[in-house]
This record gives sequence, structure tokens and C-alpha cells, in this order.
Amino acid sequence: MSTVIKASELLLSYDKVLVISHTSPDGDTLGSASALIKGLNFLGKKTAFLCADPIGKKFSYLFEDLNLTEYDESFHVVTVDIADPKLMGKLCDEYKDKVELAIDHHATHVPFGKVEWVNPNAAANCEMIFELLSEMNVLIDKSTATKLYTGIATDTGCFKFMNTTADTHIIAANLIALGADFGFVNKLMFETKSRACLETERKVLSDMKFYGGGKIASVEIPLSLLKETGAEEGEVESITAIPRTIEGVLLGITLKEKEGSEEGKTIWKASVRATEPCDASVICKKFGGGGHKGAAGCTLGENLEIGREELIKVCTEYLKEINEL
Amino acid sequence: MSTVIKASELLLSYDKVLVISHTSPDGDTLGSASALIKGLNFLGKKTAFLCADPIGKKFSYLFEDLNLTEYDESFHVVTVDIADPKLMGKLCDEYKDKVELAIDHHATHVPFGKVEWVNPNAAANCEMIFELLSEMNVLIDKSTATKLYTGIATDTGCFKFMNTTADTHIIAANLIALGADFGFVNKLMFETKSRACLETERKVLSDMKFYGGGKIASVEIPLSLLKETGAEEGEVESITAIPRTIEGVLLGITLKEKEGSEEGKTIWKASVRATEPCDASVICKKFGGGGHKGAAGCTLGENLEIGREELIKVCTEYLKEINEL
Repeated sequence: MSTVIKASELLLSYDKVLVISHTSPDGDTLGSASALIKGLNFLGKKTAFLCADPIGKKFSYLFEDLNLTEYDESFHVVTVDIADPKLMGKLCDEYKDKVELAIDHHATHVPFGKVEWVNPNAAANCEMIFELLSEMNVLIDKSTATKLYTGIATDTGCFKFMNTTADTHIIAANLIALGADFGFVNKLMFETKSRACLETERKVLSDMKFYGGGKIASVEIPLSLLKETGAEEGEVESITAIPRTIEGVLLGITLKEKEGSEEGKTIWKASVRATEPCDASVICKKFGGGGHKGAAGCTLGENLEIGREELIKVCTEYLKEINEL
Repeated sequence: MSTVIKASELLLSYDKVLVISHTSPDGDTLGSASALIKGLNFLGKKTAFLCADPIGKKFSYLFEDLNLTEYDESFHVVTVDIADPKLMGKLCDEYKDKVELAIDHHATHVPFGKVEWVNPNAAANCEMIFELLSEMNVLIDKSTATKLYTGIATDTGCFKFMNTTADTHIIAANLIALGADFGFVNKLMFETKSRACLETERKVLSDMKFYGGGKIASVEIPLSLLKETGAEEGEVESITAIPRTIEGVLLGITLKEKEGSEEGKTIWKASVRATEPCDASVICKKFGGGGHKGAAGCTLGENLEIGREELIKVCTEYLKEINEL
């Protein structure tokens, strides 16, 4: 039995479903969760949603028309776009052994669900949810189509990244035919910047650093800068794409200062974007992080200088290993 | 008889074809011309190409595998993506009455060809060339697919703009299945910036002006700045997309200084990008220019201050007319 049929049968057999998204939730994990919940709502099932981190303001439209209820032990737990139980964040301890169905598209997926449906050929987890809802014979209405389009567009950089396939475009065509408001999604996700964000971008870029003969470019977003410009953390996320776009750059790094779990302490995280033939996930794995070939992330520590030095060292060594330096 | 069949029959009946692209050639007019020529080459036809302006370096890959020959009076003239004979530039006088087939997708198309095939529902002219080559039963090989993908990706902002349709995605899926090197095209068109370009962008953005209560944003690219940063005119084209992306902006304007036809004199051109419900082509038409709803262009004159003032006045009046001010 193919896994999508198994996943479909499982979900059809449940009355109550709790869907979990990963930490630092993005368009794909939230698009997947909200579309799946909407589909389950159409079938009259009780649904609940959990994510360890707050949902960014710009994703709020995904959750406006869902029937979400309180949950208890009787709910069946399903994860979407979660490659590793650790990515449930603070929910990990409580839920990692209770996941009945894990739906994911990461090649780096670590099995943890009782049933696992993993398709690394899917550019976005939302492609799998589209397949699943079709398999379940659930109506994909305009709103569900918009949710699924959100995940596909955000995870492929609007069909720009190498993970995009012919199937990705076929599914997008279907979603547009079903009424997906792709203009709204694309404007919101790719074409809207606050003035504060623009100002932050300008300042961050003026301090870009180059290493490895220009093959590594790195920028930094300290919390003090966000305070100065008034930009929100979520809205400067687009900056992470910029270093890699510089001609000749194979590894684009963005170092971001985040509030730590301890009061008054902060922590530096790194977003690594890679161009062929580099693999960002290989680099981030060395720091306990992960992700995709083109984009991955990891946590460095409290000290920017030490974190940056270690990361640049690993990047340089990596480029030497693959004969790019 | 549908127009695509008529266009196909005409082309199949020709032995020698001269294809003309519009001035300031972009990915769609060049993708259309090169894919059509490649298709005609497969059929053993003699082909020539003309464009009044030089082809940007980044588009050179489109022309690498074409059999281009000298042309004479015996060649049948076909235009691609040309909305108005004036957009043949200095070729207009000689060719405007000799065009046997005009293939275009602009809603503002002014008829000038003996046979006209105009489809304003096509997001890109390359969609029509895909349809045409399929109708002609011409092989679409990997290289032709890449040429067609180039036009579709560049004219839709990589499937972001509102002109994108379900059909656009279906054609893109076909082209990817046919081997289109979309990763190469997208990286080159959307994700590659020289350091000089980045520096230009930074300086241009630091001087962004706002009008109409923040609904109009305007930036300027003087030739002196390009000289200072070392950026080429073609590579800073991406800046024109930025003003519109600022939150609340409905009309994003980029004023570009260009070499004039007279020695030592320069001229200012405007690129206008518009967000729903605005129509950039309405504004540019008032200055003798044209384009699409989302993006249009016009020529202002030699004096920046006067040109800017006139354009902002027209934009402000336009916003009042449509009750946005």
C-alpha cells in the first residue's frame, strides 16, 4: 500500500486530530497544518493545532477559517513538515512518542512517527498535503488552495529554487484553477517590505563581509539594529536570501541575534544559503542544525565573534573539501 | 481558423524568416525570438534576427545555438512581443509596413502586421511561442525549452505577478519536463547581483522619496552613480521592482538617466510599477509610453526635476481619480 493511501486511511479513521507544526514556523509548515485542518473540518472531524513558537502576523490569514478546539489525550497526533522531533521545540518531550503520523518532505528526516510518510522529492510539504486531500476526496476550496499555494510558494522561493519540479508547477496550476489567491500571497510573502525593514536591509548590507576569495558572504542582524529601525524579527527574514545572490558567492550567511531562553541573554543563530554544488545542510549539521541543500540553519552560541569564526572556518574547510577553494 | 493555426501555416510556408525583437530587449522578446528561430532552424529554414538595441550580456546564452544568416528583401518579417511599430526603434521606418506576422501578448497592442496574432491572456509572449511550436509540430528540445522558460519567468517575475495563470504553470511544467534549465535561468535572472550592483542599490535606496501620503515611492539612478559604483545599466534593472514593494506603496517609480541620441546629452526615462487597483500603463500612456497594468515605462525628457514633477503630478491626479487619495 502506498504511503499516501495509508496516511489517508489513518486520517479518515480518526475523529479528533491534533496537528503540530515545527518551531520558527514558516509558510510551508503553517500552510500544511491549516490546509490539512480545513480538510479535516470538511469531514466533520474535531481539530486542534500546536506550535511551540508564535505564528508570524503575516501568516494569520491561514488560520482565520478553521474550527480549532481544545485537545486532550484522545486526539491523534499528526506532524507536518517536521524533520526531527527536536523541531517540535518545547513540545518535543511531551509529544515525540505520541506522533501517529509524520508527514514530511525533508531528505534529512529522522523517523519518529508510528506511521511515516516522507517524500523528499516534494519541493514543499504542501505538495504532499495536496496529494493527501485529493486522495481523501476532500474538497479543496479557494481558501484551502490559498493555504497550499502559500507553502509551495514560500518553500520554493516562488518557483525559483532547484527543488521546484514539473509536479510543483502542475500542483500550482491546479491550485490557481481552484481559486488560490496567489496574487495576495506573493505580494505579502515576496513583495511587501516595511520602511523599517528596508532601512534595516540597507544597514545590514553596508556591513557585508566576504571570505574565501569572495565565495562566502556574511551579514549580521543584531537585536540592537532591529530596535533602532523598529523592524520586527519576522519581517527581516528576507535578508537571509541576499548574501547568496552576490555574484561569485557560493555560501551566503546571515547571523541573527535572538532572545535566549535565559532572561537578558541572547543567542546567535545562522541561516546558510548555498548555491550548487554546495550543500547548506552539511554545514549546519556540524553545529547540530539542519535543513535543505539550498537553505539550512543552526545555532551558534552567545558570542558573535566566536560563532562567526567557527562557522567561517567550517565553511572554508567545506569549500576546500569540495575543491571550490 | 484560429490565429495560432494561421500563424503556424504562414511560418511553415516560409523559407526565409527575419525575426524582430523590441527595443531595450528583455527576456520575453529575446526568449520568443530565439525559441522561434531555433524551431524554424529545426525545419531547415533560413533565419535572421534584428533588434534596434544591443542584447544584454546575460541574455547571450539564448543565441548561442542558432543558425543566423544575412538577410535580404526575400525574408519574411515576423515580430515578437512588439506592441507598437515604434518599439522597433530605429528599424521602425524600414520595417513597419513589411511585417507579415505580428505575434504579441500586450493588451495595448496597436495593429501593424499583415497577419496579427495577439493574445493578451498570455502572461508572456513565450507562452504563445510554446503554443505555436507545438502547433507546428516542431521539436522543443532542452535549449528551446530553456529559451521559452526565460521569457515566461522574466515576464511574470518568476510566477509572482498577477498576469500568471494556471496555463502559465502548465506550460512551465511542460518546459521543465522537456529539460528547461530553470535553475540556471532563475539564478541568472533573479539571484545574481554584482557587488557593484549591490552598492548602487544601497545608494539608490537611501535616497528614496515618498509622495501622496506614502502611496508613491520614487528612486533615481543617475549615470554618474553607475560610473561611481562601476555597475552596468542592464544589471541595475532589478532596482525598478523595489519601490513598489514598500508597504503601502501603490505606485513605485524608478527614474533612469540614459545616454541620449545627441552626443553629450542624456535623457530621463521612468519605469512605473503598480499594485492593484492601479494601472501603470495608464500613467505612462500620458507620456507617450506604454506597457502592462503592473509595469510600464515612458520617456520624460532631459531635465530630471521637471520630469519628476510632471510624473508625480500625473500619478497624484491618477490616485485621486481612482479614489486612492
